[in-house]
Amino acid sequence: MTVTEPASDQAIVALLRARVPGVSTDPAALAAHATDRSGAGAPGRPVALVRATSVADVQETMRLAHAHRVPVVPRGAGSGVAGGALATEGAIVLDLSAMDRILSLDPLDEVAVVEPGVVTAGLDAAAREHGLMYAPDPASGAFSTLGGNIATNAGGMRCVKYGVTREAVLGLDVVLADGRLLRTGRRTVKGVAGLDLTSLFVGSEGTLGVVVGAALRLRPRPQTTLTVAAGFADVEDAAAACSAVARERLQPSLLELLDRATLEVVDRAQGTDLASRGGALVIAQADGTGAHEEVEALLAVLGKEATWSELALDEAHAAELLTARRLALPSIETFGRALIEDICVPRSRLAEAFRGVEAIAARTGVAICSFAHAGDGNLHPIVSFDAGLAEVPAPVLEAADAIFALALELGGTVTGEHGIGLLKRDWLAREVGPESLAVQADLKRALDPHLVLNPGKAL
Amino acid sequence: MTVTEPASDQAIVALLRARVPGVSTDPAALAAHATDRSGAGAPGRPVALVRATSVADVQETMRLAHAHRVPVVPRGAGSGVAGGALATEGAIVLDLSAMDRILSLDPLDEVAVVEPGVVTAGLDAAAREHGLMYAPDPASGAFSTLGGNIATNAGGMRCVKYGVTREAVLGLDVVLADGRLLRTGRRTVKGVAGLDLTSLFVGSEGTLGVVVGAALRLRPRPQTTLTVAAGFADVEDAAAACSAVARERLQPSLLELLDRATLEVVDRAQGTDLASRGGALVIAQADGTGAHEEVEALLAVLGKEATWSELALDEAHAAELLTARRLALPSIETFGRALIEDICVPRSRLAEAFRGVEAIAARTGVAICSFAHAGDGNLHPIVSFDAGLAEVPAPVLEAADAIFALALELGGTVTGEHGIGLLKRDWLAREVGPESLAVQADLKRALDPHLVLNPGKAL
Repeated sequence: MTVTEPASDQAIVALLRARVPGVSTDPAALAAHATDRSGAGAPGRPVALVRATSVADVQETMRLAHAHRVPVVPRGAGSGVAGGALATEGAIVLDLSAMDRILSLDPLDEVAVVEPGVVTAGLDAAAREHGLMYAPDPASGAFSTLGGNIATNAGGMRCVKYGVTREAVLGLDVVLADGRLLRTGRRTVKGVAGLDLTSLFVGSEGTLGVVVGAALRLRPRPQTTLTVAAGFADVEDAAAACSAVARERLQPSLLELLDRATLEVVDRAQGTDLASRGGALVIAQADGTGAHEEVEALLAVLGKEATWSELALDEAHAAELLTARRLALPSIETFGRALIEDICVPRSRLAEAFRGVEAIAARTGVAICSFAHAGDGNLHPIVSFDAGLAEVPAPVLEAADAIFALALELGGTVTGEHGIGLLKRDWLAREVGPESLAVQADLKRALDPHLVLNPGKAL
Repeated sequence: MTVTEPASDQAIVALLRARVPGVSTDPAALAAHATDRSGAGAPGRPVALVRATSVADVQETMRLAHAHRVPVVPRGAGSGVAGGALATEGAIVLDLSAMDRILSLDPLDEVAVVEPGVVTAGLDAAAREHGLMYAPDPASGAFSTLGGNIATNAGGMRCVKYGVTREAVLGLDVVLADGRLLRTGRRTVKGVAGLDLTSLFVGSEGTLGVVVGAALRLRPRPQTTLTVAAGFADVEDAAAACSAVARERLQPSLLELLDRATLEVVDRAQGTDLASRGGALVIAQADGTGAHEEVEALLAVLGKEATWSELALDEAHAAELLTARRLALPSIETFGRALIEDICVPRSRLAEAFRGVEAIAARTGVAICSFAHAGDGNLHPIVSFDAGLAEVPAPVLEAADAIFALALELGGTVTGEHGIGLLKRDWLAREVGPESLAVQADLKRALDPHLVLNPGKAL
């Protein structure tokens, strides 16, 4: 057999075993690495799982895949919710989660160099020891990996002040489709030598290369973080209050909005009585040296239309105020399966987005709980349904489609921080248009001519 | 004549005139649009100048250039210092500076949509009316255009806190090499639908497309900005003090360092006596709600090793403290021609960088004044020489080369914020390596198969 022709699944596995340790074809292992948190089933059966422990493992895997036109699905913790890591037919699943070392952390340069399998919260904890933080904080940060965060350009609650993953990535080591190792970017804060390849790989969902290392920017950890919460009669008053925060040029480090449906589900699951106190909840934080002054300003602005508002006097109280936000998704998932949607609109349109989603819920008869990173206009409408159903019911899909249409109608995007993955591909085309799709396809072919990297996803 | 074959210069001009208004072949106009602030001569004579006033003008020009394989050199104000806008032989010079309208400025969404010829400081002034700012502030901001800033991913003094141009660009309208109009990105703060084409065009120095519009992120304008200055015995003490600022996790909104040679030239040109007060000067600012507390902390940290330090008590005093920095380059240019270099090193290596540049000046006998955006590790060694000389003297070129080598040796880059342009192309290869060059060439070919966009630059 030459190394440039398609081979049978068995032959592929044999070739893999000859080159890479950590190859498994155990059905249970394959099944465990075929899905993610999207809740969707894998569209096909993979031929093998490779648990990479070195850059060389990844290079060998890609060389073989490139030569034999075998699809490769890279994955980290499988915490994605858009289906980007779902296994596809005949694919090699390439698990990077065992490459989990923090290789260096320079407290003066405020740069960490990591392998892709490092857990997000683990890096943040390591940074904390030096008075630093890793700013991007996706909700899945306790188990998501940095490689996955980079692949999806993950967001989180702190992004409203500190930016998303892209802003934290200085440089990458990437294994290309043909196994070449590419270093992008630099270890300095600034630098403009050559094209910005780093940003091209960030958010590319495993379609252009496999991230095997990253130089990440850390930031000073604020010594003071203060929390306020305010209840509102309805979601429109709450959204108006969030707009007022922007209009007053305040810069909260967190600004979250929960609608009535969310509060009611949290109450049901947790035994709280949030919904009795108002039809919408806003939680805000200010941090840094100006935190006291800023949180007073936040309280004044939010308090204007609020039915109640309070400032957390200590950390326990602050944690309590944040509980509803933290438990929103787990509470919803207590009662059913959830499609976690993720639209982003210009923040001046946030009230319209909430109203539009409520109308979609009423029209389709589907349960939708919405909460938002309000400071960014990033809304998560969670469409839930009976977990016992074999398939996603038609009205649920109809509601999801209507939510995407709403996002575009309001000048927004179908995904603020989760990615296109498998589930939103049709909508990508509607959002970005044919010229952009054509350019993206050209770039994809330039980097992965045999289209082996995560085919059928993202692009 | 078919439209897919090379044509004579005369034929090209005739075709241009038939399709686009604003075509000039006047030798004086061509000469005026052939150079930039690099001080280097244009490597060739252009065939025509197109003063674009619409997207359609740019599309028509590119369609023609693509069909006839005519090089196109896009330019804004010509304020670049790396030679990116120098005219080349047989090229159409495409001047975007007349497309200078701010199309919209949304104070609530904090987004401005602009044409490429808007002057940087003009947008900042427009934003100021709404309590906002356009954060990137290149030294040339009073005359540079936003299109040029985007093409070079321009930096500035505020970048240490607010990020470079890339962080301010939400989306672009780009005319591709073949005349297609591409819209990238979005008008929302967050969004991850598809590849990050926006970042690919930012900093690409006119080699991948012509930016004809941009959605730019504005930020709240700090209501308070406080300024301190401190003198040091030498540049090493000053660099150590800047390191201490980082170590204490302070986040100045400006942190500049000037060496003795710079202070002496400013004194000579302006009649000041800065050098008599110390061998190095550090200027720092803090802004925002925590400014008072932060500036006190800055003063305490800088004051430790300083020979003197002071806090500006009013705006006039602050302006006076900043004068030396503002006048550094003009002062140097009073006495000769200047090569404006632009290396960036991990900020922990800043003292070594200053020391290394001093050693290069001593070894080559060339005058080098250095000042730095110290908070970013971004050092500008200004190599100056007799303006009457017809050619750059060999020791000056030797010094420049040694400075680039030093940057790489210290783990840095040959350009922090000015770009590769024409002058640093050899060094790009040494910095990024063959894999990166190959990938950049592949991407270039994917977007500009006939290599008509700013050939010979940047890549």
